[in-house]
Amino acid sequence: MSKKWVYFFGNGKAEGKGTDKELLGGKGAGLAEMTNISIPVPPGFTITTEACVEYYSNNQQYPEGLTTQMIEAMGKLETAVGKNFGDIACPLLVSVRSGARVSMPGMMDTVLNLGLNDETVKGLASSSGNERFAYDSYRRFIQMFGDVVLGVGHGKFERLLTDMKRAKNVDEDTKLDAADLKKLVDQYKDVVSTETGRNFPQEPKEQLKLAVNAVFESWNNQRAKTYRKINKIPHEWGTGVNVQAMVFGNMGDDCGTGVAFTRNPSTGDKEFFGEFLINAQGEDVVAGIRTPNPIIELKTVMPEAFAQLEKVYQTLEKHYKDVQDIEFTIEKNKLYMLQTRSGKRTAKAAVKIAYDMFREGLIDKRTAVLRVAPQQVDQLLHPMIDPKSSYDAVAKGLPASPGAAVGKAVFTAEEAESWAQRGEAVILVRKETSPEDIGGMHAAQGILTATGGMTSHAAVVARGMGKCCVAGCGSINIDEKGRKFTVGGHLIKEGDFITINGTTGEVILGQVELIEPSLSGEFAEILTWADEFRTLGVRANADTPHDAQVARDFGAEGIGLCRTEHMFFDGDRIDAVREMILAYDVDGRKKALEKVKPYQREDFEGLFKVMEGLPVTIRLLDPPLHEFIPHTDEDVEKVSKASGIAFDRLKRKAQELHEFNPMLGHRGCRLAVTFPEIYEMQAYAIFEAACKLKKEGVNVIPEVMIPLVGHYKELEELKELVDNVAAEVMEKTGVKVDYLVGTMIELPRAALTADEIAAHAQFFSFGTNDLTQTALGISRDDAGKFLPQYVEKGIFKEDPFVSIDQSGVGQLVEMGVAKGRSVRKELKTGICGEHGGDPDSIAFCQKAGLNYVSCSPYRVPVARLAAAHAALKG
Amino acid sequence: MSKKWVYFFGNGKAEGKGTDKELLGGKGAGLAEMTNISIPVPPGFTITTEACVEYYSNNQQYPEGLTTQMIEAMGKLETAVGKNFGDIACPLLVSVRSGARVSMPGMMDTVLNLGLNDETVKGLASSSGNERFAYDSYRRFIQMFGDVVLGVGHGKFERLLTDMKRAKNVDEDTKLDAADLKKLVDQYKDVVSTETGRNFPQEPKEQLKLAVNAVFESWNNQRAKTYRKINKIPHEWGTGVNVQAMVFGNMGDDCGTGVAFTRNPSTGDKEFFGEFLINAQGEDVVAGIRTPNPIIELKTVMPEAFAQLEKVYQTLEKHYKDVQDIEFTIEKNKLYMLQTRSGKRTAKAAVKIAYDMFREGLIDKRTAVLRVAPQQVDQLLHPMIDPKSSYDAVAKGLPASPGAAVGKAVFTAEEAESWAQRGEAVILVRKETSPEDIGGMHAAQGILTATGGMTSHAAVVARGMGKCCVAGCGSINIDEKGRKFTVGGHLIKEGDFITINGTTGEVILGQVELIEPSLSGEFAEILTWADEFRTLGVRANADTPHDAQVARDFGAEGIGLCRTEHMFFDGDRIDAVREMILAYDVDGRKKALEKVKPYQREDFEGLFKVMEGLPVTIRLLDPPLHEFIPHTDEDVEKVSKASGIAFDRLKRKAQELHEFNPMLGHRGCRLAVTFPEIYEMQAYAIFEAACKLKKEGVNVIPEVMIPLVGHYKELEELKELVDNVAAEVMEKTGVKVDYLVGTMIELPRAALTADEIAAHAQFFSFGTNDLTQTALGISRDDAGKFLPQYVEKGIFKEDPFVSIDQSGVGQLVEMGVAKGRSVRKELKTGICGEHGGDPDSIAFCQKAGLNYVSCSPYRVPVARLAAAHAALKG
Repeated sequence: MSKKWVYFFGNGKAEGKGTDKELLGGKGAGLAEMTNISIPVPPGFTITTEACVEYYSNNQQYPEGLTTQMIEAMGKLETAVGKNFGDIACPLLVSVRSGARVSMPGMMDTVLNLGLNDETVKGLASSSGNERFAYDSYRRFIQMFGDVVLGVGHGKFERLLTDMKRAKNVDEDTKLDAADLKKLVDQYKDVVSTETGRNFPQEPKEQLKLAVNAVFESWNNQRAKTYRKINKIPHEWGTGVNVQAMVFGNMGDDCGTGVAFTRNPSTGDKEFFGEFLINAQGEDVVAGIRTPNPIIELKTVMPEAFAQLEKVYQTLEKHYKDVQDIEFTIEKNKLYMLQTRSGKRTAKAAVKIAYDMFREGLIDKRTAVLRVAPQQVDQLLHPMIDPKSSYDAVAKGLPASPGAAVGKAVFTAEEAESWAQRGEAVILVRKETSPEDIGGMHAAQGILTATGGMTSHAAVVARGMGKCCVAGCGSINIDEKGRKFTVGGHLIKEGDFITINGTTGEVILGQVELIEPSLSGEFAEILTWADEFRTLGVRANADTPHDAQVARDFGAEGIGLCRTEHMFFDGDRIDAVREMILAYDVDGRKKALEKVKPYQREDFEGLFKVMEGLPVTIRLLDPPLHEFIPHTDEDVEKVSKASGIAFDRLKRKAQELHEFNPMLGHRGCRLAVTFPEIYEMQAYAIFEAACKLKKEGVNVIPEVMIPLVGHYKELEELKELVDNVAAEVMEKTGVKVDYLVGTMIELPRAALTADEIAAHAQFFSFGTNDLTQTALGISRDDAGKFLPQYVEKGIFKEDPFVSIDQSGVGQLVEMGVAKGRSVRKELKTGICGEHGGDPDSIAFCQKAGLNYVSCSPYRVPVARLAAAHAALKG
Repeated sequence: MSKKWVYFFGNGKAEGKGTDKELLGGKGAGLAEMTNISIPVPPGFTITTEACVEYYSNNQQYPEGLTTQMIEAMGKLETAVGKNFGDIACPLLVSVRSGARVSMPGMMDTVLNLGLNDETVKGLASSSGNERFAYDSYRRFIQMFGDVVLGVGHGKFERLLTDMKRAKNVDEDTKLDAADLKKLVDQYKDVVSTETGRNFPQEPKEQLKLAVNAVFESWNNQRAKTYRKINKIPHEWGTGVNVQAMVFGNMGDDCGTGVAFTRNPSTGDKEFFGEFLINAQGEDVVAGIRTPNPIIELKTVMPEAFAQLEKVYQTLEKHYKDVQDIEFTIEKNKLYMLQTRSGKRTAKAAVKIAYDMFREGLIDKRTAVLRVAPQQVDQLLHPMIDPKSSYDAVAKGLPASPGAAVGKAVFTAEEAESWAQRGEAVILVRKETSPEDIGGMHAAQGILTATGGMTSHAAVVARGMGKCCVAGCGSINIDEKGRKFTVGGHLIKEGDFITINGTTGEVILGQVELIEPSLSGEFAEILTWADEFRTLGVRANADTPHDAQVARDFGAEGIGLCRTEHMFFDGDRIDAVREMILAYDVDGRKKALEKVKPYQREDFEGLFKVMEGLPVTIRLLDPPLHEFIPHTDEDVEKVSKASGIAFDRLKRKAQELHEFNPMLGHRGCRLAVTFPEIYEMQAYAIFEAACKLKKEGVNVIPEVMIPLVGHYKELEELKELVDNVAAEVMEKTGVKVDYLVGTMIELPRAALTADEIAAHAQFFSFGTNDLTQTALGISRDDAGKFLPQYVEKGIFKEDPFVSIDQSGVGQLVEMGVAKGRSVRKELKTGICGEHGGDPDSIAFCQKAGLNYVSCSPYRVPVARLAAAHAALKG
């Protein structure tokens, strides 16, 4: 017997259920579940995602048994509906929709009204008593089928529709009558013949087979692949296909169609939210072609249907205990549900909804925390327009995705991508966006569209990405070819700065000051709940008192990485640093370092004060010395003039210090093995600052970190140096400060010999940036020439500099922890690479048994939440 | 009870034995063993190396019990000799000599005639009836004790001796009479008082304690530390101290002293070899102050003593079954042995002696193979003067260490080091060398001295280092200050080229053509024996048919690494390569690659022919493309003119390809993941060549190697590419060629995920150069600024690019082998980094279970021998 590829639903009973998402896809599972809980759903059947996978591994052929099972299911469907597929008198029409495990809105293909042909259309007209409706459905079918299945560009059909509307002098297609639509059907069929060289397929069974194939194929269209890449969806999953009896929103003014959320997905407010169109089919709403009406108006227009909808809302939220994103059609005042799924929401909404649902008793605290995706809350930490700034908005659109953005206007997705690659901040300005624009939307700071509603493509996608978006801003006039738009009397050309505010819908000329967000309200509360669950500590990478303060405000429990070299560049001190580098001997270096010391001491004092009571991990000098010396003749000239150091001397030094592979050169603790006086100065600065503050009553907890250790003897030697300085300073000041000396584990050899190193280290901090560079042999600065292709090809699932390479670098981290603890049971371990703020990497850190992660200050809330997720899921 | 620190020997019985080298040091063990086998040895006692170690860990204080044990042993010694230490009438005098586990000639200190003072010297004079002898001994004692123990420079004493000789108008110190020597003793004592502020110590017990301390201290003098570093002797070992009753070679013309080898340590010939001086003490021979007489003359001068010596020779060789390096003193025609140890020998001698001793039945084949140190045979593979070249020698010295060298003359060890660091080949020219010169000798290509014999410092050290050396070349007149020497009518200034031939003793002006050596005679035979024992295969790294032929002649069993990029530079092909790099698209690249292919095919044909019947591992393109493009404006200009490619285009490409860390950049298989056409071309060239030759009856065994794999998917993709090309070419030519596709393991990630990789690899070749660079995070090209200090400080025992870092990189190799074999049991594994020719690394490879090592052609014999040692010792 062949495998079960097809699952039927209808008559209040479904073969599948809501938890079968992997098998049936999200849409299929939702339809099955709604059927089972007696929500009105047109009957139909779902072809499994396994069938799609099998289709691809089977050389794009149907798996054995699929055809038979489809025929059987169609028979059941005919019985359930009481109509026959292809019946000339009263035809059963079906929709064919994709549905993957997770929603990929607009990425894959759909065909409605399938089963129509030159004969059945007449039967539909007579059985419905509505000829206009029948031909409207047929022209829609030809267009969708033509576009999706036969590859005829939809522009060709739309042009004919526009021409017809112009000829009839109407502005909406609902104003076209049956005769117009009949004519249009003929024109459409001609287009298909001309473009494909064959007539539009008339046989409903053939139509079905072709449509199912097309849905399977659409899994691998370019935009779907791009979407999956961005959203880290495995290419192996495949899509389900849902074949469902049509209900018609386009039968007249007692019909309609809409999409809605059970709560506001933008703000999270507990309110009906959505849009509908009278006398329309579903695609009209999401395509952004006609601007739909707010759902609340439905109460007035079709009170009966609205009441049904209201009841369904409540049932669904209670059943799913989460916000639902639904699609419905009203056929002659009767409501049919076509889809329900967990609603995508902005981070702000996710927080609000989780918080509210916990307060409402719908979910527990643990679930509330898990409902807020760490990846997403980064949005809440994005810039906003400074409330103190004054500006005039030149236009107002829909507040489709919150946050604010400043950038140069560009008018195509390609330009957005190429400008962004050059490092320009851009705002993508489009009449409406389409799935092809996905790359450009990703590259832009924000998106501004002229048409489309809150559930238009631009709005949905932007919210998913956490990009700020202003949608449906009708007052702007876009000239895409001319690369400009006008609004009011203003002309904005490509490259002109604009600011958009996705929270209010405002569009502003020029650059408005943005401010950094802060934690407050429900978000702060949810993070507090997260803190109750997480076991990983969260620290921040911060080099200045200001950054440290931000981090502390965001809940950092210490500083995991203070890069002292950043202090070397500031103001006058760079001169002393250069003097040190140019010195001929130890005495010369020491003299110059003496000048740097007071600055360093001051910096450390500032940090210690802000972080009072919390540990501050200070990494001693790490970069190669040539980073402090100018290199080009021009720069050498400039520095020479400013500093009074002879050009030749500077130039010679730069040449002398030149390295072929600076990443693997004379840096980190190697500097101190050859020039111990550098770390000595830094140790003095640290302990002088610490002792002074301790004396003043400030609780300081310094942790001195030696970078780039590869051999325990390096650490042994330098720990002794630090300990000696500490002892001397404490002796001199008469103050005792508790401190630790530890090391970065950022070279494979350090991880491999972590047992030897742990004998001399009081803590390990995994420097996964360098560890990734060395373990993979990939220079981050040079990887641009091949790494994107590697990710594209799936050699790496993700950029290993963004999310830790668990099977390679991860082994080294695990090895480092295990070996380190084998020698020093209570060894404190953390991570301070940029992976420290990446949720997947944080989950890995939890698994690897680290004590803390350290990340940039603005990622601290993300890390707190991710750590809670890791603890709850682990 | 305290530990036993002191071991007595005398009266035909010793507390220690010959195998106690670790405890007693080499000298102490030799004295004990000789005593036990009834060879005449003056009695004495040995203070153990453990006492020295304890002394250092005990804050430079004697360990508990040592003083008591020394007093007891001295009592026994007095009984054995029948004289008392400090006795005014007939004093016992002793020598105090260092003796570490392994010989460190001239590195540590010795004091003779200890026990003399203003009173006992009179007793010695009267008891010996030889006043001259007594005062000669006393002045020697003051000088040695003053120098070694009290830190008065020996130059101060020597100056007084020279003045005295001048005043008396004699040229040898034996010509000074007792009165002269008495005066000299007074002058010497004055020098000590002036220099040290106290009188020369008169109390023999104090003298002894001070002398023992001084020997302990001499373990850590600078030259001893340098010597240990060069010879890889652990600093922790410590030295033994031998206190032994004096016998006197300076009592008259029936006395003497000498050093000898039981066979010729330079050629290995079975002949008496050594030197002696009449009426002298031991130090006179090795110091090179008086030029000694060949040992054979002793037969004439002191036939009785010579006969004793001959007997001892035979006894010792039979007992030790190895060449002995001995020191003896003749006191009134009676022979006393002062030392025996395994004789250092040149590689040539080691081979000859091992071969002869096997033939003589003294040792078995296994021992014969183990007697030849792999590190050393490299010497035999060093350049010789081309026998076809004609030249006139301007001088002839002693052929002290074989081989030939060409270099610029320099006159101090410091200059030798600094010139060598600049990349200059130098010959160190010295009147005589001293232990302080060790660094300069190491840096030089060869050493030329004006005085000193075959056992002088220069000769012994040079042989140990495998450096060519001409010693005792009396006809050259060196002006060290003026940095020049004259010989005949010629003036040779610093920087002038000279050639020396250590095999003949010739000194030649200018540069003589040198030739590479070949395997022959006993050496070839020993290597054949080695092959019987070894289990590791030995291959060579060779890129050209010529190198492959050299490798095959040296016994290579295949090519382990052919770097195809070397072929890219040759002749015209670089133009096509540049055209490929500059191409705008795939087609352009393919067109250019088509031009490169015929060259590559030819190269491979050449290699396959030479290596017929043996595997040839071809690594596909590895270096980043910018290596083929000029970089400086000057070079760009040149190439632009020559190639007709526009300057700007070349320049732009160079900038575009620039990398910050090329070592970690777009190279290796990454090139082929982005530009598959490159490897495709190479695969065609390989298989077209292989199939053509196979058709002609040549047995070809290609092994295609993919470099820099970090992720199995890279290999999976590229193996498929190679397999496809192979199949196509074989199909087309109708010839089947067996081949393998494998990978380099040269990134930590590759080793860490070797199980995944092995699923797609038919062999692994560990690229330990890159693996060391990445695991340690050290760029070999940039390491010069800190790695020497790391080795100096003992952070790394040895340069990890020379000898594999077993505890770090070694773990990755072991992991790679284990994980690889866990998936593919019969996985072939090898090493092709430069470590493949390093004996210690080869021993590691044996332990790690590799199948073969691959090294440069000239190292193949070294590797064969080292592999045999590894198998025999493992």
